[in-house]
Amino acid sequence: MPNALRRFLIGRPIATQRAAHEKLPKILALPVFASDAMSSVAYATGEMMAALLIAGYLMGPLAISEYTIPLSIGIVALLVIVVTSYRQAVLAYPGGGGAYMVASDNLGPLPAQIVGAALLIDYLLTVSVSISAGSAAIRSLVLTMSDGRVDVNVVLVALVGIGIITLLNLRGVRESGKIIAVPVYLFIITLLTLIGAGLWQHYVGGGLNLANAPEVFEAARPRPETLHGTAMAAGVGVFLLLHAFASGCAALTGIEAISVGVTSFRQPAGRNAAITMVWMALILSVLFLGVSFLAVHVNALPETAEGVKLTVIAQIGRAVFGDGVLFAMLQILTAVFLVLAANTAFAGFPALGAIIAKDGFLPRQLANIGDRLVFDRGIIVLATLAGLLIWYKKADVHQLIPLYAVGVFLSFTIAQAGLVRRWLRLKSPGWWWKASINGFGATLTFIVMLVFAIVKFTSGAWLVVVLIPAMVLVFLRIHAHYEAMRAQLSIRDFDPSTMVVPKHAVLVLIPSVTRGVLRAMLYARSLAGEVRGIHIETDPDRTKRLRDEWVQFLPDVSLVILESPYRSVVDPLLRYLDEVQSERPNTQVTVILPEFVAPHWWQNLLHGQTGLVLKLALLGRKNVVVTNVRYHLAEEHVSLRDMLDVQKEFTGQK
Amino acid sequence: MPNALRRFLIGRPIATQRAAHEKLPKILALPVFASDAMSSVAYATGEMMAALLIAGYLMGPLAISEYTIPLSIGIVALLVIVVTSYRQAVLAYPGGGGAYMVASDNLGPLPAQIVGAALLIDYLLTVSVSISAGSAAIRSLVLTMSDGRVDVNVVLVALVGIGIITLLNLRGVRESGKIIAVPVYLFIITLLTLIGAGLWQHYVGGGLNLANAPEVFEAARPRPETLHGTAMAAGVGVFLLLHAFASGCAALTGIEAISVGVTSFRQPAGRNAAITMVWMALILSVLFLGVSFLAVHVNALPETAEGVKLTVIAQIGRAVFGDGVLFAMLQILTAVFLVLAANTAFAGFPALGAIIAKDGFLPRQLANIGDRLVFDRGIIVLATLAGLLIWYKKADVHQLIPLYAVGVFLSFTIAQAGLVRRWLRLKSPGWWWKASINGFGATLTFIVMLVFAIVKFTSGAWLVVVLIPAMVLVFLRIHAHYEAMRAQLSIRDFDPSTMVVPKHAVLVLIPSVTRGVLRAMLYARSLAGEVRGIHIETDPDRTKRLRDEWVQFLPDVSLVILESPYRSVVDPLLRYLDEVQSERPNTQVTVILPEFVAPHWWQNLLHGQTGLVLKLALLGRKNVVVTNVRYHLAEEHVSLRDMLDVQKEFTGQK
Repeated sequence: MPNALRRFLIGRPIATQRAAHEKLPKILALPVFASDAMSSVAYATGEMMAALLIAGYLMGPLAISEYTIPLSIGIVALLVIVVTSYRQAVLAYPGGGGAYMVASDNLGPLPAQIVGAALLIDYLLTVSVSISAGSAAIRSLVLTMSDGRVDVNVVLVALVGIGIITLLNLRGVRESGKIIAVPVYLFIITLLTLIGAGLWQHYVGGGLNLANAPEVFEAARPRPETLHGTAMAAGVGVFLLLHAFASGCAALTGIEAISVGVTSFRQPAGRNAAITMVWMALILSVLFLGVSFLAVHVNALPETAEGVKLTVIAQIGRAVFGDGVLFAMLQILTAVFLVLAANTAFAGFPALGAIIAKDGFLPRQLANIGDRLVFDRGIIVLATLAGLLIWYKKADVHQLIPLYAVGVFLSFTIAQAGLVRRWLRLKSPGWWWKASINGFGATLTFIVMLVFAIVKFTSGAWLVVVLIPAMVLVFLRIHAHYEAMRAQLSIRDFDPSTMVVPKHAVLVLIPSVTRGVLRAMLYARSLAGEVRGIHIETDPDRTKRLRDEWVQFLPDVSLVILESPYRSVVDPLLRYLDEVQSERPNTQVTVILPEFVAPHWWQNLLHGQTGLVLKLALLGRKNVVVTNVRYHLAEEHVSLRDMLDVQKEFTGQK
Repeated sequence: MPNALRRFLIGRPIATQRAAHEKLPKILALPVFASDAMSSVAYATGEMMAALLIAGYLMGPLAISEYTIPLSIGIVALLVIVVTSYRQAVLAYPGGGGAYMVASDNLGPLPAQIVGAALLIDYLLTVSVSISAGSAAIRSLVLTMSDGRVDVNVVLVALVGIGIITLLNLRGVRESGKIIAVPVYLFIITLLTLIGAGLWQHYVGGGLNLANAPEVFEAARPRPETLHGTAMAAGVGVFLLLHAFASGCAALTGIEAISVGVTSFRQPAGRNAAITMVWMALILSVLFLGVSFLAVHVNALPETAEGVKLTVIAQIGRAVFGDGVLFAMLQILTAVFLVLAANTAFAGFPALGAIIAKDGFLPRQLANIGDRLVFDRGIIVLATLAGLLIWYKKADVHQLIPLYAVGVFLSFTIAQAGLVRRWLRLKSPGWWWKASINGFGATLTFIVMLVFAIVKFTSGAWLVVVLIPAMVLVFLRIHAHYEAMRAQLSIRDFDPSTMVVPKHAVLVLIPSVTRGVLRAMLYARSLAGEVRGIHIETDPDRTKRLRDEWVQFLPDVSLVILESPYRSVVDPLLRYLDEVQSERPNTQVTVILPEFVAPHWWQNLLHGQTGLVLKLALLGRKNVVVTNVRYHLAEEHVSLRDMLDVQKEFTGQK
């Protein structure tokens, strides 16, 4: 039954040899791996403008309109640099693993584990943030459509969302790619339409409508006080601009996903992944620049400004599309897209987890390939952690966002540093140029990471700053255990001549003489070695009967009676084993526990669990093997009449 | 650690031979077994008066003052008859079990199971009602003392109360008897003082104070309407009197506890139990009659009357003692005593459960004697069920009371009918007289049961009416299973010459060649029979290496490679077993699973659970024995520096 349910939910197992067919063409790989990165256009501009709104207090009221577009261009430039770096990483490491592999190969296992921890955290946060943002969007849609009469529980919606995405991913990479492609491409087209229509209105048509009336815009403008224009303000101003830049860099999160999942691409995987990455960067740049340009020209304000209720992208949508169907569609697609962005992390987390596990820094089971050729345990771990985090943080995006992005930029930095090292080592044609680009990129992403970590330290980034080293320590400890185990189990210096078959003593536990026990005795005698029956006495009357039956059926086997003053079964047996093992060291002892198995589970509840208790008690004992010999009881067919016979027998007697 | 906690909470194990010392002297047995019965004086009179208050609408305004005392005398008469019956039962059945044993011996197993079900339900309800009533009393005490500022959660208090009583009982019968004796005797003395003082005031002193002012008493009096005095009213009046009689019979619940637990008494157990029972009946009669007499003479009214807030016993206490210390003590002792009354059920339920289990109608484990010579599983079952019931019914006494007492009177009736049958059969001296008393008692208790069941049917008694047959069916089904199992396991017609030691095939699962696997191979070779290594191939590269190592270490053992296209370990092994077993029927197959055990639990999480999965898959297979051969890994000592060495090695290489 659980098997049938499993089949229904995630489909039939796929054979290993079909793996090649499950690979993704570029047209499906883009939505699977790039939706996280692309979905960030839904909020990156807004985050940047929110930072500039604060900057305005020091830098003058025009900060937003002055700096939004230049900073956006700067971010796109950084995007180009990072993508260029990663393109080279993908081509150099077609086996996947992205920043982790780059770090592992060029900088060593320690930096690699730092990258691994940072990326795993970031994937987890991507899922939590995207799903939470998506379900908040769904809630406001429902509220708007029902005029506030119908409300939904965001946590519940988020958990259902996680459940659906988990099932999609357990079904397999390719199937989830197909299902996700439609809304992703619809979103891209809708956003391109928005940008096209906006530019048309601005340059060709009668000019753009304003999202906010001039008086709202005026009111929201910060009133520069005494600081504006002083030398000190100029210094702080640089920091604030960096803050805005770092906030806008939210647009870059998720672009590493392709480099991790290269192996999911069709052959030639490296080339295909590199091409998909360029597409992604192109689309992302156009969308991001377009949104930033229009945001400035429709007088959009960040949600944090007074009197503003819509997101920046919604303000643009309303100004360009008006209040009609297109605007509603934009809103719905944004919500859906945010939920789907989580899917990128569902592709990345298990893949990265498997790579780290293969290196022996995470539990090996994470590298197991499941029924549907996906790393199903990693998917389940991610879904569970994200579910718990969302439930704990009540699906509140503003509590989750500050944890976000430090990890990604840390991994960008380390990966690019690794590539610099690679070029310096290999000195392949153009190495100087490549190393310069990667070095410049590494420096920039390092600065962005520092700004993020410092600016958002108190509001949650500290957790990530603490968590990454802690995780790295755990990874190293796991690795040390695997190494120690491997050394202990290794047969390298093992001398085959030491393999001497030990003598054998077989002890069979005898609660009473039944067919099941006789069956177990037969089994015991089919093993080599001396066989003894062991009875632990709790009732002297039973012992007497037992002895009689024993002589009748097993006259040639010795029977040992152990007293048990405290009615425990475990203690006398352990004491007897001590005796046997000290008398005859190097003897292999097998303890046989006869067991009967009833056909129904409830029937087994009617029998003592002595066998289980003994088994647990003997778990840690060396040179003792515990064996259950089962006697299967046949199904009994009992009618009500049969059950009442018990009374008839009584009446008959009297 | 759990062991140390266990020791602290319930004490050290007690040896079986000390059992005789754990028996109770009469002075301790009385509080243990009779507190339930005696605590009912706290509410029985009130219940009866509440029924008479309703009767007053038909029978005239004087119903309470007219009928309370005669009905009380009638109830005491019934008590005398029932106790006389049970005294005989105790003497005839010194092995304990009370009504259950009487029914089992004289009427057969079916009536015995009905009694068993009825009594088990009633014990459960005794615990729930007593604890709930007690914690309600504690709450009103706290509220009164704090002037309504401090409130307590009744459910929580009730659950804590259950926890404490459970621990006391797990410590053992005698210790709980000692702890309970003090408040029980204090309560009896206080109540006797109350009755003595009241009688003194009434007959010798200046007369009793009235609990309710004449005008309150007047107002509460029902106004008889047209029905009073008509023929129809007379007919219904009999029913209403019966109702009042039945309600007052709450005083009789719990008197059967002594007869169930006879074995806990010191020798001669039967005689001691019979004496204790007479004491109990005497004390109970005096207290009950005294309370009823005073209730009428202080103009007490039931809590259900308008304007009345105190229980009947509290009204008497206030009238006799005034508002001082003695009144407060009476209230506190009543509350404590109600909670302790639950203790009786904690003595009765496990004892009865063990007797039924020994007869094979309940899971055998209930008959096991625990560390402290008590039926610890029965105690835990009772505590769990009562806890759930209290939690579900929110510790509300009024929801629980209607379920109560039907079961007890059913068991009274059956037990007395059983005794009648016994006298008719044995014809021992005085049999006619004994049979008459028991027959009369059986008839009366049967009527009381019917009245209870009918009057309270809709308010909850239906549940008991449904539950008892359902439980009896379950008991019978369990018994049928044990019988079927016994027949299947029985060696009665077993022919020893059929015991032929089977041939043996030993299959060792080989994931890879390690010291652990070599150890398992040694074990396999120490068994008789053919040994084969089985490798389930999931990675062809590993297979090649495996073959090489196999030839090196185990050249004389055959190795079977099983392909696994869907990466499952279970399916190929099951198919192979099918093959082996169909080729060579009657061969005993042992599957050996090499396992390594790491010293820490978390380390074992780092290794696959393939062994467990295989074990579960092979559970139901006949003629296959699964054996784990464990290889114990040594403790590894890893410092931070050791962990970081992984990076040093990398740096050294480059």
